[in-house]
Amino acid sequence: MVHITRRERFSAAHKLSKAEWSEAKNYETFGKCSNPNWHGHNYVLWVTVKGKPEPSTGFVVDLSALGDIIKEKVIKHVDHKNLNVDVSFTKDLMTSTENLAIAFWNQLEKPIAELGAQLHSVKLQETENNHVEYFGEK
Amino acid sequence: MVHITRRERFSAAHKLSKAEWSEAKNYETFGKCSNPNWHGHNYVLWVTVKGKPEPSTGFVVDLSALGDIIKEKVIKHVDHKNLNVDVSFTKDLMTSTENLAIAFWNQLEKPIAELGAQLHSVKLQETENNHVEYFGEK
Amino acid sequence: MVHITRRERFSAAHKLSKAEWSEAKNYETFGKCSNPNWHGHNYVLWVTVKGKPEPSTGFVVDLSALGDIIKEKVIKHVDHKNLNVDVSFTKDLMTSTENLAIAFWNQLEKPIAELGAQLHSVKLQETENNHVEYFGEK
Amino acid sequence: MVHITRRERFSAAHKLSKAEWSEAKNYETFGKCSNPNWHGHNYVLWVTVKGKPEPSTGFVVDLSALGDIIKEKVIKHVDHKNLNVDVSFTKDLMTSTENLAIAFWNQLEKPIAELGAQLHSVKLQETENNHVEYFGEK
Amino acid sequence: MVHITRRERFSAAHKLSKAEWSEAKNYETFGKCSNPNWHGHNYVLWVTVKGKPEPSTGFVVDLSALGDIIKEKVIKHVDHKNLNVDVSFTKDLMTSTENLAIAFWNQLEKPIAELGAQLHSVKLQETENNHVEYFGEK
Amino acid sequence: MVHITRRERFSAAHKLSKAEWSEAKNYETFGKCSNPNWHGHNYVLWVTVKGKPEPSTGFVVDLSALGDIIKEKVIKHVDHKNLNVDVSFTKDLMTSTENLAIAFWNQLEKPIAELGAQLHSVKLQETENNHVEYFGEK
Repeated sequence: MVHITRRERFSAAHKLSKAEWSEAKNYETFGKCSNPNWHGHNYVLWVTVKGKPEPSTGFVVDLSALGDIIKEKVIKHVDHKNLNVDVSFTKDLMTSTENLAIAFWNQLEKPIAELGAQLHSVKLQETENNHVEYFGEK
Repeated sequence: MVHITRRERFSAAHKLSKAEWSEAKNYETFGKCSNPNWHGHNYVLWVTVKGKPEPSTGFVVDLSALGDIIKEKVIKHVDHKNLNVDVSFTKDLMTSTENLAIAFWNQLEKPIAELGAQLHSVKLQETENNHVEYFGEK
Repeated sequence: MVHITRRERFSAAHKLSKAEWSEAKNYETFGKCSNPNWHGHNYVLWVTVKGKPEPSTGFVVDLSALGDIIKEKVIKHVDHKNLNVDVSFTKDLMTSTENLAIAFWNQLEKPIAELGAQLHSVKLQETENNHVEYFGEK
Repeated sequence: MVHITRRERFSAAHKLSKAEWSEAKNYETFGKCSNPNWHGHNYVLWVTVKGKPEPSTGFVVDLSALGDIIKEKVIKHVDHKNLNVDVSFTKDLMTSTENLAIAFWNQLEKPIAELGAQLHSVKLQETENNHVEYFGEK
Repeated sequence: MVHITRRERFSAAHKLSKAEWSEAKNYETFGKCSNPNWHGHNYVLWVTVKGKPEPSTGFVVDLSALGDIIKEKVIKHVDHKNLNVDVSFTKDLMTSTENLAIAFWNQLEKPIAELGAQLHSVKLQETENNHVEYFGEK
Repeated sequence: MVHITRRERFSAAHKLSKAEWSEAKNYETFGKCSNPNWHGHNYVLWVTVKGKPEPSTGFVVDLSALGDIIKEKVIKHVDHKNLNVDVSFTKDLMTSTENLAIAFWNQLEKPIAELGAQLHSVKLQETENNHVEYFGEK
């Protein structure tokens, strides 16, 4: 068993706030992340899959096929978008890094399985100082 | 003469588009940066000042005072904000990295001079792949 | 279950040596890390906690509260200090990166539990070439 | 139990291709990595060992002895070499990052055990966008 | 006048050696870089152009057009290639980082001028420890 | 003319304080950098020389000879040392990053000239957030 990881990046806008709360309550709960006019990040995404290297190629998975899945299922939907407005699989969420990682896992798990590999983790960095990792545990 | 550089970071939303242009023309000119619902970045800002080290301290400038100026004049206005909406000194600009660097220079030049130092350059990184540097040349 | 990680940094002096050993024996055992007049590092600390995202916020833990704990319980004690002299919870240790990580775990485990989260690991980097990770296993 | 990691780097040439396949079939399978005249990378290698810190030193392992093993058993054989031609323990492999990590594990496991420590993982980065990690699972 | 920089990356094989010299003399002059069977690097390339931001766009240059020129004139020729064998504009050079930077400048200067911008510098990193910068000075 | 840069790193202890001042006055002037029991950093040093590539080698300077000079004249004196106590060419200085860069320039200028190259700049990073650059201007 070997783990192999592909890094992709995207830039997006978002905010953390609940429509049914006042601006003051949102600020109290989410601080500057609640700015009504949005803010944004350069997100970094690492997708790790695991498996045995295939003897004839030495590959757990064709990295270029894995990259295509990540781009098709996640990056093209979120890059240079507003995660709370433009993205079908995140716009109804509180767009915390935690929830984004889970949403990306859900986008990726099945297509990666169809490629013959097993998704191990989705790691998502919001800033140099914060990142989350999700292993599919419910 | 020694150059000394302080790095600060901020996260902000913006878009590149002209209100008087159609969405199609904006897309043609600015590509995915024209997304109507915004996108955002983790910007990195390096401010370089130059001067002679003061003999009793060995400092060209008190870095902590320099940091305070950068925070007071730039960071607190732009961090977790929308550069096209929330920020008095950028909201009337096309918020290209070039124009942001010039706007930040204009915010910083005088307070840094009042500190007894000379602003040398403002370098601003939008993503790992793009940055600009402005030396105050008109 | 999601893992969420907060990075903090500090700069400190230390040395590796045993008072009861000769300078020669200390050098033989600890090499240049035994320099009697100290040396120092820019340490990087990653603290990972795990839990389920709280539905109303999407947060495993309030990152800003986590950051405050790390600053209050670790950073303010060690930043710009001598780990062998100034810090109550490290000064009686051989200040290897291993022992520092364990000492920081002991500082953090309880306050993080009181925040309603579970400490998963403490990772500490001494230089680009060396880091340790501790998961609380005795 | 603490994990401790040592980073080393090397630069090497390689290609992915099977001698018994046509250039066209190799290109179809391995893409630009099949270039007949080679290409190369700055590889980054992280070797993690685990154990209990020894009370008198605070060390899981003498990092300098660990570094010497990594240099002696891996780096000096692969740095500024062609992995498909010059290196006894990789030249008969498809030199995918997966297979290289396994080959390096096999070089390192025993000498690290003789040092009194236990190899936990070998992580190998080919580019900023790709890395693998091997934990010795057959 | 603002400087704007675009980063691109490529991976290539090369060696430093003179055909008319013995292997021993090549080793004496170029050290491990003379390995007859090649080695390789992940090169990082920063191309800086300068000019005045165009008022209607805020751009010194359309970064995406600049990126296309760099890819068309440099990257597609060198990525996953052997710089001493496969690349028309480097194969007759001693492929030192210095000479590569000059060769890339010569590839880029005219197409960038045709874009209406002025090439300011070509910076090329061979490893984390070494880079060169060329400003077009003969 | 090409600029070529070599990076080296070292870890050292220091403090900023004047013996003739009270601890309170030192703290007021130098903040946490005045901690009486020292603190320390992982410094990063970039040395840039300039010249014309020599036609037979393609080198402005033999990087390995340049590296040896930097190690011999700077690194071996400062690595794992106390800059205020152990180092002949810095111990009588206020060890600000500015003064260190000037002191390193003075150590390097002549030996680099004897190598047939011209020192262009010494850049020294104290932390990710602060660095200085000195070009030899008096």
